Amino acid sequence: MSILRLSEDEIASRLRSGNVRIGVIGLGRIGVPTAVLFAEAGAKVVGGDINPAVVKGMNQGFCHFIDEPGLAEAVAKVVLRGRLSATIDNREAAIGADVVIMCLPTPVDESKTPNYSFIVSASKDVSKSLGNGCIVAVESTVGPGIIENLIIPMLEEGSGLKAGEDFGVVACPDRSDPGRVLRDMKKVPRIVGGTDSRSTSAFAALYGAASGVRVIQVSDPKTANAAKLMENLFRDVNIALANEFAIIYEQFGIDTIEVINACSTKYNFMPHYPSRGVGGPCLPSNPYYLIVEGAKVGNIPYLVRMAREINDRMPDHVVELVIEALNDIARTVKGTRIAILGISYKPDVKDIQNTPVEKIFRKLQKMGAELTIYDPYFKGEKVFDVVASTSLQDAIDGASCFVIGTGHREFQNLDLKMLSRHGYGRVALVDSVHLVPPEIACREGLVYRGVGRKATGMSSAVVMPTRWAGAPA
Amino acid sequence: MSILRLSEDEIASRLRSGNVRIGVIGLGRIGVPTAVLFAEAGAKVVGGDINPAVVKGMNQGFCHFIDEPGLAEAVAKVVLRGRLSATIDNREAAIGADVVIMCLPTPVDESKTPNYSFIVSASKDVSKSLGNGCIVAVESTVGPGIIENLIIPMLEEGSGLKAGEDFGVVACPDRSDPGRVLRDMKKVPRIVGGTDSRSTSAFAALYGAASGVRVIQVSDPKTANAAKLMENLFRDVNIALANEFAIIYEQFGIDTIEVINACSTKYNFMPHYPSRGVGGPCLPSNPYYLIVEGAKVGNIPYLVRMAREINDRMPDHVVELVIEALNDIARTVKGTRIAILGISYKPDVKDIQNTPVEKIFRKLQKMGAELTIYDPYFKGEKVFDVVASTSLQDAIDGASCFVIGTGHREFQNLDLKMLSRHGYGRVALVDSVHLVPPEIACREGLVYRGVGRKATGMSSAVVMPTRWAGAPA
Repeated sequence: MSILRLSEDEIASRLRSGNVRIGVIGLGRIGVPTAVLFAEAGAKVVGGDINPAVVKGMNQGFCHFIDEPGLAEAVAKVVLRGRLSATIDNREAAIGADVVIMCLPTPVDESKTPNYSFIVSASKDVSKSLGNGCIVAVESTVGPGIIENLIIPMLEEGSGLKAGEDFGVVACPDRSDPGRVLRDMKKVPRIVGGTDSRSTSAFAALYGAASGVRVIQVSDPKTANAAKLMENLFRDVNIALANEFAIIYEQFGIDTIEVINACSTKYNFMPHYPSRGVGGPCLPSNPYYLIVEGAKVGNIPYLVRMAREINDRMPDHVVELVIEALNDIARTVKGTRIAILGISYKPDVKDIQNTPVEKIFRKLQKMGAELTIYDPYFKGEKVFDVVASTSLQDAIDGASCFVIGTGHREFQNLDLKMLSRHGYGRVALVDSVHLVPPEIACREGLVYRGVGRKATGMSSAVVMPTRWAGAPA
Repeated sequence: MSILRLSEDEIASRLRSGNVRIGVIGLGRIGVPTAVLFAEAGAKVVGGDINPAVVKGMNQGFCHFIDEPGLAEAVAKVVLRGRLSATIDNREAAIGADVVIMCLPTPVDESKTPNYSFIVSASKDVSKSLGNGCIVAVESTVGPGIIENLIIPMLEEGSGLKAGEDFGVVACPDRSDPGRVLRDMKKVPRIVGGTDSRSTSAFAALYGAASGVRVIQVSDPKTANAAKLMENLFRDVNIALANEFAIIYEQFGIDTIEVINACSTKYNFMPHYPSRGVGGPCLPSNPYYLIVEGAKVGNIPYLVRMAREINDRMPDHVVELVIEALNDIARTVKGTRIAILGISYKPDVKDIQNTPVEKIFRKLQKMGAELTIYDPYFKGEKVFDVVASTSLQDAIDGASCFVIGTGHREFQNLDLKMLSRHGYGRVALVDSVHLVPPEIACREGLVYRGVGRKATGMSSAVVMPTRWAGAPA
């Protein structure tokens, strides 16, 4: 019997007794933990992915994410128990499934247009084996209305079934943070909005039973997608605001981090910190899902767009700080050895998707710097056209400038004395992620620049005014 | 002996023993509770204000704020005990004071230029009786650098003394919320930054002893002022962001309040709600202090400026909603009786400084509406050229449209049936402060529009697209 006809308790007990079958389409950073979550709770899960290597690995109990705590062990366990298998055929993953969960990436292309081709293609596949009474759940982030206007018609066309009657479609946007996805899935409440209240409540019951989290049921898919966008765009806009303040406060000789920490003592303030910008699969692309849908109704969210542009230009500002710092030690970028410490888009993940550090690297490279890279997650790997150093010391030897690109845990107690010792002549430190306070860098005799911070070291009295070119387009 | 030479404990004990003398310049919404705070803690306080009526009232133990819980009683008590008196001569308030606290308004003029004339004029007065060893504390919100570059030179010139040596100047920006200022002063941590560490720590000790709150000492006045701006601009920008989402989501048929409440279940989201915009003495003006200082160094905070403009245009959007709602009941604004319920800039204060409701009123008035006003804080008073009704029923009788302008507690259980009964024909409700959910209004048979909400009532299927004209200037 379709789970659409079961009560909340019946759904939970069917899950526990091993009689729920789930297809998870897309075995990426969200799909794999989603599959694990349901398999651990008792479901029989079949994962679909177009990458044969991923499918083969998973069927051998292997997980390709090394930076998600507990995930590799969990995958090995559920595969061994026969609860999780994988296929390169999405139709096969969907056959006979009570629920099909779509975890496809929704990136933006170079001109910032959302690329829904992965989810469209997967929807076509799934539609061909979609059973009556099935629920299709979309975890991917999409613009409000995309499920209603793009995905549902595709599912209906391929299956000959009617959404909201023969099968249900729910949006259940992922809310977890890369680097702790499995933990967040069992901790952060979920938002579910479906084509009809039966699908919404059935999926909410199933998700709640599998994860143990509170599930918030909202009116429809577009409302759930709107919520996912709002919470991510809230972050992007507030980080941009911190960056906007940072660039002005640098000119005023005010330490932005000191300011933010003082503000944080107020009950209605939430701290966001300035940096070299924002990367990863979500924040750099999510704003464009709203911008594009807004443009369609003649209503562009300007704040959201400007915030995105501000964050996108922060790498340029970091390069300006590098130029200033090098100027203080009488050097040009051209011909100077510069070590980039950390390239991941955020701390403690092995992930350089949309990392702002690449832009810093590319610009310095174009200006003729001799660049080395050290990142604990990319030792000896080829990244941005160079092979990353296998040790910190290799990367810093003979460098005149150190750019902290990512606040990895390993860098939190960076030995500044060692940087000075290994560096060539008087050395400069540019901190793009507020890891080293100015006064500490100053004490160790380094010329220092940091995003939003007071300049210290030689010529520190004369800070070049940094013109900010972030004018509205 | 100057308190600059005393230890933290000595300062606290001197305060308790009645041997600290404090001048408070500016007896407004912040100055009066500040005076009370120190008087209650044992200080001898003299308040200075240019308004003879305020001074006369205070010397009789009378407080002119009726919407600050506990303030009137507290004023009466400390005046009776001889701990608080007032004078129209600021110089007199400053004579012999250990600490002079400046609580002057810093509004912006019509063209959004900060008007520092009140604090400049008061600084000139104070400088003439400024004693060696005194601390001047500025609670007013000013741009970063204004204390250093405008106020200190004025104090030095008039006194012949040197700031940071002969006397101290600290920024101690007010962080309290109108309507609960006295409570907040005893609850919300304070940020203090002075010309020198002695002044900063002495004033921090005094403020901490008087209020019982944690005091955060920061590097200098400009850092403290930067923090005050950042926390208020954070709010203004986030309210604008909520408004930006609201206007788009209205067009998508998504309820923004449902979205925000769903988002609020995420650990790193902070809810801000859409409305008819922002009023009061702080949020509409504070952004311009940063914009002006930023412009001076060639660096305008565009996000902050655009957010301000978005909030400033929200009253126009409310008027659009009124027009749409009236259209649904086949009426024009011209000749229609419209009742405005609530005019204060925020709930439960008697304060219409920069209230967005005035803009709604003026525009509807210009379009030929017959307007009535009801606000529990302005019964029978002349506001915006009309005399406000003395009762809700008087205001609503014969009206075809009700506009909720302020979410006063009294309106939280508004009897919608009564609105329908007293109204003329089929009636429309426009909720500018998300007090009435669409489904409730619909159930009561009202034509409904709300900022960021789904339209309900007649012709609800056809929602006019609302063009948003908030393009970058």
